[in-house]
Amino acid sequence: MAKHTVESCSKAKMAIRDTLDVVGGKWKLVLISVLRSGKKGFNELSREAGISPRILSKELQELEMNGLVIRKVCDTKPITVQYELTEYSHSLNDVLVAMEKWGYQHRKRIVQGIK
Amino acid sequence: MAKHTVESCSKAKMAIRDTLDVVGGKWKLVLISVLRSGKKGFNELSREAGISPRILSKELQELEMNGLVIRKVCDTKPITVQYELTEYSHSLNDVLVAMEKWGYQHRKRIVQGIK
Repeated sequence: MAKHTVESCSKAKMAIRDTLDVVGGKWKLVLISVLRSGKKGFNELSREAGISPRILSKELQELEMNGLVIRKVCDTKPITVQYELTEYSHSLNDVLVAMEKWGYQHRKRIVQGIK
Repeated sequence: MAKHTVESCSKAKMAIRDTLDVVGGKWKLVLISVLRSGKKGFNELSREAGISPRILSKELQELEMNGLVIRKVCDTKPITVQYELTEYSHSLNDVLVAMEKWGYQHRKRIVQGIK
């Protein structure tokens, strides 16, 4: 992002859009962040992330489709399903870390401004 | 994000949500990225970002409210309005850079996979 030429700007814009197409929206990065602590069942994930089952199901399907989450059927009685991050999902680390840091400082700034 | 304790995970989740509350959605980071090349008028911004005027107007208001963009009325004939990034918006640089990098590599990966 050092130089702002028409070409570099439109490449940057496209790349940011590409990222938002895959992990944009209200939930995907939150889900990935929650799954970083280890694989989880559907209900556990719904509770921890605070997402309704209907939306969670759709979000997980999209994350699976993009190779970021794997759905594992476990041979237990009754059969259970667990969701886990893929190796590829770790490529999002820098995005998650940057968003975490920004969120922390922004909340701090708002709280200080209110005082 | 080094350790995964219940507390650190829920702090991380909250921080990511806070960030998404401010710059989440389909357009805000794209708009910030477009404005990095300098201040722009409303129509110019609408064209460059590919956003309909109605949505652009709402997005710009929210960006202004969160101190990321300033709206400047210029004393020209006819009066013109320009939008510019604030100093504070630069705090999002790491988020933008990380998303750009991820977007580039993801597109490359997809293109290579298709070949």
